[in-house]
Amino acid sequence: MAAARSITLKAVSTSLWSPNRSLPKAKTVRALSTIMSPPSKAVVYEHHGPPDSVTRMIELSPVEVKENQVCVKMLAAPINPSDINRIEGVYPVRPPVPAVGGYEGVGEVYSVGSAVKGLSPGDLVIPSPLSSGTWQTYVVKDHDTWHKISKDSPIEYAATITVNPLTALRMLEDFTTLTAGESIVQNGATSIVGQCVIQLARYRGIHSINIIRDRAGSDTVKEKLKALGADEVFTESQLEVKNVKSLLSNIPGPALGLNCVGGNSASLVLKFLRQGGTMVTYGGMSKKPITVPTSSFIFKDLSLKGFWLQKWLTADRTKECREMIDYLLRLAQEGKLKYEMELVPFGEFHTALDKALGKHGSQPKQVIKF
Amino acid sequence: MAAARSITLKAVSTSLWSPNRSLPKAKTVRALSTIMSPPSKAVVYEHHGPPDSVTRMIELSPVEVKENQVCVKMLAAPINPSDINRIEGVYPVRPPVPAVGGYEGVGEVYSVGSAVKGLSPGDLVIPSPLSSGTWQTYVVKDHDTWHKISKDSPIEYAATITVNPLTALRMLEDFTTLTAGESIVQNGATSIVGQCVIQLARYRGIHSINIIRDRAGSDTVKEKLKALGADEVFTESQLEVKNVKSLLSNIPGPALGLNCVGGNSASLVLKFLRQGGTMVTYGGMSKKPITVPTSSFIFKDLSLKGFWLQKWLTADRTKECREMIDYLLRLAQEGKLKYEMELVPFGEFHTALDKALGKHGSQPKQVIKF
Repeated sequence: MAAARSITLKAVSTSLWSPNRSLPKAKTVRALSTIMSPPSKAVVYEHHGPPDSVTRMIELSPVEVKENQVCVKMLAAPINPSDINRIEGVYPVRPPVPAVGGYEGVGEVYSVGSAVKGLSPGDLVIPSPLSSGTWQTYVVKDHDTWHKISKDSPIEYAATITVNPLTALRMLEDFTTLTAGESIVQNGATSIVGQCVIQLARYRGIHSINIIRDRAGSDTVKEKLKALGADEVFTESQLEVKNVKSLLSNIPGPALGLNCVGGNSASLVLKFLRQGGTMVTYGGMSKKPITVPTSSFIFKDLSLKGFWLQKWLTADRTKECREMIDYLLRLAQEGKLKYEMELVPFGEFHTALDKALGKHGSQPKQVIKF
Repeated sequence: MAAARSITLKAVSTSLWSPNRSLPKAKTVRALSTIMSPPSKAVVYEHHGPPDSVTRMIELSPVEVKENQVCVKMLAAPINPSDINRIEGVYPVRPPVPAVGGYEGVGEVYSVGSAVKGLSPGDLVIPSPLSSGTWQTYVVKDHDTWHKISKDSPIEYAATITVNPLTALRMLEDFTTLTAGESIVQNGATSIVGQCVIQLARYRGIHSINIIRDRAGSDTVKEKLKALGADEVFTESQLEVKNVKSLLSNIPGPALGLNCVGGNSASLVLKFLRQGGTMVTYGGMSKKPITVPTSSFIFKDLSLKGFWLQKWLTADRTKECREMIDYLLRLAQEGKLKYEMELVPFGEFHTALDKALGKHGSQPKQVIKF
């Protein structure tokens, strides 16, 4: 499939790419010391639309690696829902088209510009904060895009550590002060963020109450989540009771709720919350809105807020972000943070994309291996 | 009507009232210096239920005014929606039945216990924080219940200054930092809180965007609210446009929204809010819940909170509360804070109650005059 979709740059307008992807004009040709990237194979889209029809794999010609730039040979990059939304054009922040897909990933430094310090060929790096265009074999970006991580980092976790685990970590930190023995409640607990929340909470001695969809095999899902450290796991139908809190044994009512589903599932999160609690919405998988009775605000004093990693990251938190990335990668390396992924060769990108689009039912996170 | 409903205390069990309302036992009879209140006429309810059928006016026998207590001759007290909810039994905090109705009001000190300092007969006082049982001619409470206010205070405003105007003031203060030139948006703008919000905002140079129901005479309502200082007044149907903000001329998007209606009217408040704005819910007149799209939380970064004066007051804010009451009463005295009220003689309490219950359509705030 990859071969059929690949085309060389000659078939594509050179204006398709960022300035340093266009062919060097005569007058800008540098001395012999000019460093060029290797040609790059990339998944690109020229228009917004259904990702399986607007993306194609093409070859991009070498570009100059300027003095402050670093060329990275990508090793792995995931397909995240937000990548899909960017291609669809429904995400509020997205690169101008035409664009290379992908927003996070991990790679190895291939070559560095003459003025770059602190990064050398062979270093393991991730774009941090996130940066567009990770679905290609060689990425050239300014040196400050790249965060050098430990060479021991497990590649598939390094490729996926920002978008989901960092969201989980920030949501546990930014809205309430949680101390050991307290609890949180979340829906969409089987998502990667959900799995990270369970593990990060447990690691801090915080109980988690988890809500999952009713579906075949929910008992197996419950066992899996409990093995990760979940204290309680309920299907939505189990929570069709007058007082959901009566189902909790020895767990205090949660001060923090996390919602990535909306609709009834969000209402269940609200029901668990204790007086004065906060529900943070970071996704809307059911595509249904959140409905709240007036009394929840006035008498139960609940607060509802949202979390968007993109916004958090753009607030010039690069240093803080990188420290947390290192922390999360250490946990992953020690086996304290894990989630299911499926590694897929780059050549089979469109098979992975179909899985990420949900065409084959529930699937593990798809991670492209270059 | 009052006469028909009035009964003397002899017909009522003496256990109906608080300890100092029961007949003094022989051994507690004091020396000649014992101060007794006059007999009191009161609106009471022995059971929760529909206010027009469970309340009746009765006479209560004199009670002792203990050394730390003050007997106040009530002058005026309003019928607030929360009073009605307390009688109905649907309010989370309510006095145990049997109880005298009412929660705010104003009176004149009639007599003081031997140890009371700082209050003398003739002083104008209000219960502050709020205190139950204001629907009676003489109220005996501990001296620290009573806040002495300026003798120039307009009686009907003194009677109603806490529940509604203080709610308006706190909501403008507690959730966002508003500076002159900024704006707020609210629904239920014709309510007393709504009218206070308009005036308090205007007094601080803050623009108000106001949403009212569609009904006959809405043009007159608009003019009234604009005369109070409203910058913009829209009926809900006027806001059935794609971009409500396009209707604003020279007013920045509001950072604060106030909702006392719920349903579609709350959604309209949300639509006006700017990125990162907060909507505070303090009522639910439509009895419909609040529905919020996921994207409002994630991408628009809206926060939803609640305000309940009762909770604010119980947090030991007596001093702060009284300072604000004085501030609000000064504004009322200077004509900078006004709202419509209908003064009704106590004997016609049940006529006023029917109006407060909405039996005769929209009516001004009913204030009992003793």
